[in-house]
Amino acid sequence: MIRLHWHPFSIVPRRVRILLREKAIPHEEVEVDVLRGDHRAPEFRRLNPFAQIPVLEDGDLVICESVAIMEYLEERFPEPSFLSRDLAARALTRQFMLWSGDYFAGPWETWMAPAFAPEAPVDTAGRDKAYDNITAHLDVLERRLTNRDWLVDRYSLADMCYAPLVTVFDRVELGHLISARPALAAWVARLCERPAVQDTFPPLVPLSLPKRR
Amino acid sequence: MIRLHWHPFSIVPRRVRILLREKAIPHEEVEVDVLRGDHRAPEFRRLNPFAQIPVLEDGDLVICESVAIMEYLEERFPEPSFLSRDLAARALTRQFMLWSGDYFAGPWETWMAPAFAPEAPVDTAGRDKAYDNITAHLDVLERRLTNRDWLVDRYSLADMCYAPLVTVFDRVELGHLISARPALAAWVARLCERPAVQDTFPPLVPLSLPKRR
Repeated sequence: MIRLHWHPFSIVPRRVRILLREKAIPHEEVEVDVLRGDHRAPEFRRLNPFAQIPVLEDGDLVICESVAIMEYLEERFPEPSFLSRDLAARALTRQFMLWSGDYFAGPWETWMAPAFAPEAPVDTAGRDKAYDNITAHLDVLERRLTNRDWLVDRYSLADMCYAPLVTVFDRVELGHLISARPALAAWVARLCERPAVQDTFPPLVPLSLPKRR
Repeated sequence: MIRLHWHPFSIVPRRVRILLREKAIPHEEVEVDVLRGDHRAPEFRRLNPFAQIPVLEDGDLVICESVAIMEYLEERFPEPSFLSRDLAARALTRQFMLWSGDYFAGPWETWMAPAFAPEAPVDTAGRDKAYDNITAHLDVLERRLTNRDWLVDRYSLADMCYAPLVTVFDRVELGHLISARPALAAWVARLCERPAVQDTFPPLVPLSLPKRR
């Protein structure tokens, strides 16, 4: 049995949850209470010494890192496929998968920090820089998506990696950045039509996030 | 013709340089003067909007992100192979490839900062934390490598991803962390026996790095 360790407020595991649904893979989802710090407990560190979700178990096999997990699921359950057979398209799919983490995770965390530590002083300069980095990243996506429905050929692992981020921008005072970019907005709308994306939306909770100055 | 954009003092492109040599792939190496900021120039940003090396060109195809580049080279030039055909081994290879970046890049940069900005005040607390993170990461590797020659089955992309880091520890006041861990030390020695690793050592320059307190 496939088991996925995740938490509803964590962005990254949602990519894997989307893929599990797109491929209709029978699986069990195990919620790790990251708000209580359960991911740092010794039992969880036996699965992932770096104390991060998602983690996927497939029998005795334990895989950490969402990109490695998605590649594994694609190879283990090849149909329907979300990674092209064309070598150039595969390379670009992987590039976008990695970009969605390497250049989004940091700014996102800084932007979202006040929601998780409402008593801490707000790092306004840091959040302004994060906002600028997010904006620049969206410009890259807008250029790529102009005259394209998906990041690479068909709907792929690349789109799924960005989906957990871009589909919640309107909840975190960033929605205007998407509506101002037509190709991006159309892509987000296409993502939101996927049942797998709809089924995995995090619960709607009131967030108190400062807007940008 | 394959072209790799790199710089000798940048850790990450060296993984790709090692792989190009292991596979004996004819290629051209283009030095990007990152110390002068050439990676932020508009011409380079046309290759990579995030202004990072390495970038690989193969004819008209431009690929960013070292992990995507290595997967591409593995698929485009399958022999000799450095990624198992076994699905579980492939997943673990990818997990280690990603770990080597996700959990090493940040601490490494903090640790190395005084070498690149000798006039700036040293962030001692930050460097202490980076040192602790590097130590914890090496403990993970030591456990994995005990009774193993390589991270996953045979010498693979995973080992190549760590090679640029662990083979220069003795130059950056971290060598004692390796010599204190026997499985790790034996692995680093095995890495250093590979001609591809030897051929790609960065030039030896005098570095003035504070040790840990």
